[in-house]
Amino acid sequence: MIVVMKAHASEAEIQAVVTAVEELDYRGHIIRGVERTVVACVGEERGEQHSLGHLVAFAGVEQVMPVLKSYKLASREVRPEGSIIDVGGVKIGGRKIAIMAGPCAVESAEQVESSADAVKAGGAHLLRGGAFKPRTSPYAFQGMESEGLSLLEHAGRRVGLPIVSEIMEAQDIELFVAHADMLQVGARNAQNFSLLRKLGRTKKPILLKRGMSTRIEEFLMAAEYILSEGNPNVVLCERGIRTFETATRNTLDLNAVPLLKQMTHLPVIVDPSHGTGLWTLVKPMALASIAAGADGLLIEVHPNPAVALSDGPQQLRPDHFAELVAAVKPVAEAVDRTM
Amino acid sequence: MIVVMKAHASEAEIQAVVTAVEELDYRGHIIRGVERTVVACVGEERGEQHSLGHLVAFAGVEQVMPVLKSYKLASREVRPEGSIIDVGGVKIGGRKIAIMAGPCAVESAEQVESSADAVKAGGAHLLRGGAFKPRTSPYAFQGMESEGLSLLEHAGRRVGLPIVSEIMEAQDIELFVAHADMLQVGARNAQNFSLLRKLGRTKKPILLKRGMSTRIEEFLMAAEYILSEGNPNVVLCERGIRTFETATRNTLDLNAVPLLKQMTHLPVIVDPSHGTGLWTLVKPMALASIAAGADGLLIEVHPNPAVALSDGPQQLRPDHFAELVAAVKPVAEAVDRTM
Amino acid sequence: MIVVMKAHASEAEIQAVVTAVEELDYRGHIIRGVERTVVACVGEERGEQHSLGHLVAFAGVEQVMPVLKSYKLASREVRPEGSIIDVGGVKIGGRKIAIMAGPCAVESAEQVESSADAVKAGGAHLLRGGAFKPRTSPYAFQGMESEGLSLLEHAGRRVGLPIVSEIMEAQDIELFVAHADMLQVGARNAQNFSLLRKLGRTKKPILLKRGMSTRIEEFLMAAEYILSEGNPNVVLCERGIRTFETATRNTLDLNAVPLLKQMTHLPVIVDPSHGTGLWTLVKPMALASIAAGADGLLIEVHPNPAVALSDGPQQLRPDHFAELVAAVKPVAEAVDRTM
Amino acid sequence: MIVVMKAHASEAEIQAVVTAVEELDYRGHIIRGVERTVVACVGEERGEQHSLGHLVAFAGVEQVMPVLKSYKLASREVRPEGSIIDVGGVKIGGRKIAIMAGPCAVESAEQVESSADAVKAGGAHLLRGGAFKPRTSPYAFQGMESEGLSLLEHAGRRVGLPIVSEIMEAQDIELFVAHADMLQVGARNAQNFSLLRKLGRTKKPILLKRGMSTRIEEFLMAAEYILSEGNPNVVLCERGIRTFETATRNTLDLNAVPLLKQMTHLPVIVDPSHGTGLWTLVKPMALASIAAGADGLLIEVHPNPAVALSDGPQQLRPDHFAELVAAVKPVAEAVDRTM
Repeated sequence: MIVVMKAHASEAEIQAVVTAVEELDYRGHIIRGVERTVVACVGEERGEQHSLGHLVAFAGVEQVMPVLKSYKLASREVRPEGSIIDVGGVKIGGRKIAIMAGPCAVESAEQVESSADAVKAGGAHLLRGGAFKPRTSPYAFQGMESEGLSLLEHAGRRVGLPIVSEIMEAQDIELFVAHADMLQVGARNAQNFSLLRKLGRTKKPILLKRGMSTRIEEFLMAAEYILSEGNPNVVLCERGIRTFETATRNTLDLNAVPLLKQMTHLPVIVDPSHGTGLWTLVKPMALASIAAGADGLLIEVHPNPAVALSDGPQQLRPDHFAELVAAVKPVAEAVDRTM
Repeated sequence: MIVVMKAHASEAEIQAVVTAVEELDYRGHIIRGVERTVVACVGEERGEQHSLGHLVAFAGVEQVMPVLKSYKLASREVRPEGSIIDVGGVKIGGRKIAIMAGPCAVESAEQVESSADAVKAGGAHLLRGGAFKPRTSPYAFQGMESEGLSLLEHAGRRVGLPIVSEIMEAQDIELFVAHADMLQVGARNAQNFSLLRKLGRTKKPILLKRGMSTRIEEFLMAAEYILSEGNPNVVLCERGIRTFETATRNTLDLNAVPLLKQMTHLPVIVDPSHGTGLWTLVKPMALASIAAGADGLLIEVHPNPAVALSDGPQQLRPDHFAELVAAVKPVAEAVDRTM
Repeated sequence: MIVVMKAHASEAEIQAVVTAVEELDYRGHIIRGVERTVVACVGEERGEQHSLGHLVAFAGVEQVMPVLKSYKLASREVRPEGSIIDVGGVKIGGRKIAIMAGPCAVESAEQVESSADAVKAGGAHLLRGGAFKPRTSPYAFQGMESEGLSLLEHAGRRVGLPIVSEIMEAQDIELFVAHADMLQVGARNAQNFSLLRKLGRTKKPILLKRGMSTRIEEFLMAAEYILSEGNPNVVLCERGIRTFETATRNTLDLNAVPLLKQMTHLPVIVDPSHGTGLWTLVKPMALASIAAGADGLLIEVHPNPAVALSDGPQQLRPDHFAELVAAVKPVAEAVDRTM
Repeated sequence: MIVVMKAHASEAEIQAVVTAVEELDYRGHIIRGVERTVVACVGEERGEQHSLGHLVAFAGVEQVMPVLKSYKLASREVRPEGSIIDVGGVKIGGRKIAIMAGPCAVESAEQVESSADAVKAGGAHLLRGGAFKPRTSPYAFQGMESEGLSLLEHAGRRVGLPIVSEIMEAQDIELFVAHADMLQVGARNAQNFSLLRKLGRTKKPILLKRGMSTRIEEFLMAAEYILSEGNPNVVLCERGIRTFETATRNTLDLNAVPLLKQMTHLPVIVDPSHGTGLWTLVKPMALASIAAGADGLLIEVHPNPAVALSDGPQQLRPDHFAELVAAVKPVAEAVDRTM
């Protein structure tokens, strides 16, 4: 931690900072510059009692700058070779690209079975589908809930694909652990720390989506909540952030992909369906995601998007999904990955 | 709902839209313009089965524009005179300004009792304090939890102020209903719809904070989740949004205050502590909030911010809080409000 | 400047940084922490040849953190008492609030004369009006240009108000110096450094608007361009920033007002017309601006907004403007200012 | 244009809108819905005197929604096959990817000659370099100006690459027309309409960068300024937008690439150097850009980034640039493009 003093900070103010710093078991080095004096604090910087952020409230202090990032277990440093997460036999994070696909929401047995056939035929490795749906409006379709999860499980087992579905609250953990292969935490719960902590006490693979306004470092801190409770099976998912741009539903931040791959050992996948909100952009952005280094894709596919109960505009038809997978293959090979 | 067709949409495509619209019990009016044809859909626009957003996936459709906002119960139209919410005897939403104050987090009996004395003496009407704390880092102080809530309750009862505290998950509703006068939903849970729905089944006043990237209309939809379950006691709180500006912790969006007052009958208060993140900005922004038409303020006050376990930089000292309240009074009177 | 080395930076890498730092006439202090080594660089940090940002490209370097802000002449430190700018006899920056008002665009002699009468009667101290208009579309009304400036000048002289108008390119400086009392630099030119530099070579008061995505520090750097060329007469104007919120045209960032007043000696005014884009929000946000500490207001007023050639939705009718000024007065007094 | 009336708009208010609409040579269709009445306006919507936006200021009007986009000449509709721009013999917009590379700033004859050799050897098709530099600080290196342009021209001619350089003000147009093959308009001038208009009167190819907070539609309107003056030679460049994310210098918005390719016939290239600000992200984001459908790349390359006078952290070393080009080739082929 570096404490920068104001231009005219008094000697007493500087000493007060050093004293406060040393009371917290750091050593404080005073460096007198031409225009500013700074106090460099040496010691273990992470952890509750050692926070020095409050020093900004001291007289004579201009700013306090942290030197260390606050995530540890998610850091690339602890596992330079990268993590590979096993989801019902499908490996995510290795050389092979993993494709998760399926409808935004489970709407009926017929729709989910038809979706399962379509994504299996198209080349997906996991089947996704929403049983519990976080909808902006209380008047919109809220999902088929536990019945939807059963339908998804049935369809997945039938076609031989592990299933991924979104969990919205802690009370459903047991249900999801019993029936799903991977539990998705949605963008709106990306900083629901109570939920993250409890998911950290299971061993189930977690698909953690980035929040709409979550900075990269905060995203890793959210993962850290799960990891620090003992569950190492976390896959990160970039799904677009909220910006001033309104032509697309979100702004897909592909910078995040190579940046996260440098910062963390966790696998990183991309959801171009939410990241664009427009089905005509899904294929080019899926290709871009793989070229940027993503370990997989999450694609919304619906047997008939025009009658979908949610997110119709961004879901692909089965034939377009098959085209997408076919187009991903040569790009994956161009960046030394396989399908 | 207005469906705008593409420049060269065929007659068959236009008719397909009209047919789809009429199958959903709307009437479809075709209006042929010089460069575009539009289909205006007449009927009840809100509600699950009537969504027309999926029409964008139809051949020949360029865009679909909703005419109606999707919140109903929160709308000013349903209660033009405005709502007044009673929190343990304190009225929020009338001519009188309501001030909630207290520490970011409950840290000890001594700290919370001292805070209660300070904010009572300074002129607050409600005592706030965090017992359960949503912290970005799992290694930061997470709050004293139920013990903290008890300490806050004790301090509030002693000085005669109703208490406000943040609830983070549904399993704690019973605890909060028993011990708190008002339940705060924090920015990170602003779109935790499961929690909102369950809070809607209590009758407790809810202080609903705007999320970091929540648009005004989405904010009202979040309130609608609570209202639609039967709880009319919702107070909205603007607390800053996330933007590109990094000089302040958040960008306090005071435009939201008069805009919300026009759109909804619910009371609107402002939290300049989180909205700025810097204690030196709290007083001027508190004054600005009242001048903009806010019904109250949420102010973080700590007996000694320099040793606070969280958010030290934005908490006020008791003497600064008393100054703030004294300064608010003439501004409130200038806009025809009282303290 | 503080250089933070990576966790496993070698001794040679650390020495290479120190050598590079000392070649640029800084002294480099090595501080060895528990997890990271940092090099603190002591010396004059501002100026071209002394930039150390490139050190981030050195092997073993994790980040480079500047300690000093890069503006000097705009800094509050150089004039703690604050600047007062004289615009044709009207003082901006003292205890008295300055109000600039008039139409978005000069449209005709009749319209500008009528506007001048209205704003003079309503209580304005300066007359504003756009002669050269930066319009997003090349097909929209582009202003009456030099003829418009003459009309504005005539109207201002007649009613006895100094005039303010926007300059869009350097070739018009002579024209504006001859005919306007204050030259406005619009948001889209906020970082047009060529123009700023040339305006710095005049002595005319400059009204510098913040850009749509300009951070506070960049805003002060833009002012520094003018100041560093010798023109000390700069007034800053907050006019809203671009965020994800679409309910208002811009997000008026009133945090910027007290923050700028702490950081710089330059006067700060607010434009709630552009800052909201909706005339019904202009009055409450004008009051909020003054309560936050603004030195003045810029208000768009049109004799008949419903036929305005630009920005109709945000312009006030003369009677609403008079009401606004009447409402500002008690708020100004509440914060110890006068009208 | 669709005018949505308020819930309780009176018949007189509705008629007033229709009258106003018809006075502007539109026909107004009244459609009476269950909760709202709308007036659909039929006629030529684009152009100065026909703007209906001001109707929002009419009594009883809730909102006014445009149906048409306001750009015409830039629209894909006018040239469905796409434009190919010829820059000194290099074609941009066809199947072949175009790569522009060179230093951020021209710093000396030696540096620019060495850069030219490096980018030519590495596989670039055009040489870029900044002679006039828009720098946030007036104290930073401002470029070698006309001397820099001559040095760049000399280097380009010697190695046989057309040159691209940024123009900052209209007074330099003659100079650039004489010496440069393509004129770049930087992000800070993306809405400098005076400059755009004057560049539209030349026939030189223009490389138009997106502004930091420019929406896609505004970006196309900026291009429309150039096209509408008669210059059809415009290439668009996505270079990152400003968001809340601070881990990267900008957020590269690759959604913009396929979206622009659908909306306009103009070629679209990407600048991953500014779009990320970190050289380690440049290669993966260059690959992603091509996979997303970009027609070319703009890459900053410096013989020795560690001593660069500007933007050191984002410039590539010559060997890294050569690696990048080699890696782009198979990705380009995977999406049916050539190098």
